[in-house]
Amino acid sequence: MTKISTREEIIRKGAELIHAQGFNATGIQQILQTVGIPKGSFYFYFKSKEDFGLEIIDYFGAMINGIITHYLGDKKIPPIQRMERLFEFFEAAFKENGHTQGCPIGNLSLELAGTNERLRVHLKDVIEALIAQVESCLEEGKRDGSIPSDLKTYDTARLIFYGFEGAILHMKVTKNIEPFRAFRSYLTGYFENIKAREKK
Amino acid sequence: MTKISTREEIIRKGAELIHAQGFNATGIQQILQTVGIPKGSFYFYFKSKEDFGLEIIDYFGAMINGIITHYLGDKKIPPIQRMERLFEFFEAAFKENGHTQGCPIGNLSLELAGTNERLRVHLKDVIEALIAQVESCLEEGKRDGSIPSDLKTYDTARLIFYGFEGAILHMKVTKNIEPFRAFRSYLTGYFENIKAREKK
Repeated sequence: MTKISTREEIIRKGAELIHAQGFNATGIQQILQTVGIPKGSFYFYFKSKEDFGLEIIDYFGAMINGIITHYLGDKKIPPIQRMERLFEFFEAAFKENGHTQGCPIGNLSLELAGTNERLRVHLKDVIEALIAQVESCLEEGKRDGSIPSDLKTYDTARLIFYGFEGAILHMKVTKNIEPFRAFRSYLTGYFENIKAREKK
Repeated sequence: MTKISTREEIIRKGAELIHAQGFNATGIQQILQTVGIPKGSFYFYFKSKEDFGLEIIDYFGAMINGIITHYLGDKKIPPIQRMERLFEFFEAAFKENGHTQGCPIGNLSLELAGTNERLRVHLKDVIEALIAQVESCLEEGKRDGSIPSDLKTYDTARLIFYGFEGAILHMKVTKNIEPFRAFRSYLTGYFENIKAREKK
């Protein structure tokens, strides 16, 4: 492998292990062993574990951003339905690891934001970008008339994000999709209500 | 110190460090040093770090349970107002550490539920108990007529918990109370809406 592809491989494999175990529980040696490169070569690719953490956050941020863009950017269907499809996708994705891993950005936020300023600011930026994507989808719904024009889109977007992260937390401790389904069903009811209110 | 009070002191100080830094980032040596007892004496009090983790979860569970009981059990004021006071208390509590530490049970859930079955089940039990307290407060509101009789109290209680945990996550990454205020304000609006619906 070239230097660049080895670096990418360390990030990819490291992200996988960190998603399953957490950042502090994942040692550099374990990552290097999994990738199959010699001990001690980590610092050839990254200045520190903190710098590696920044790359891991970027990796997850780009991954989630890509998924959200794919679903919420689908102009063929109405904005609210796009959101429903996005959460349907996440439900299927959570199943793959038995509902144990949850949202990597949520995990890293609670684990690291309190103790590491550089990682905290990076996580904040990723989260604001995710909320902004939901907000922009809601704005589109306002323009096409499917969402009431007086809806506060930033507040609604972040409350959807809060419900999403909280439901995932409950999913992780129960090892069961049911809490996430309760969140999805609440959201469906919420959108039905605001549409009904609009019609009055 | 006697054996029992030293054990309690290790739990109390350990809980403080774990709330600030996370479970895996907090070493046994650091806890013992802070308490001021000799290295290596940890296993005189606890079988393993996992067993210690169970005690830490119990410690936080009892603490939060006590706070919730204090506010939600206050029969002098209506159930919804009790909830508002509870969240007002949390807002003030978060301020004390500059909005960096969040909910210890939420933190431990995302950090540990995916990798440790005993700790996961323990965290689940604590969380279900917290949700049950909110549920029972909502049930009281149904009985006194301040909450519509058709409200699904378990689902509502856990969605309040999800919004609470998600807002705290956003508070931690922004180091700002504003996300938690948005959650509180959403909740106030939610209760106003269901009361208004009831009156029609």
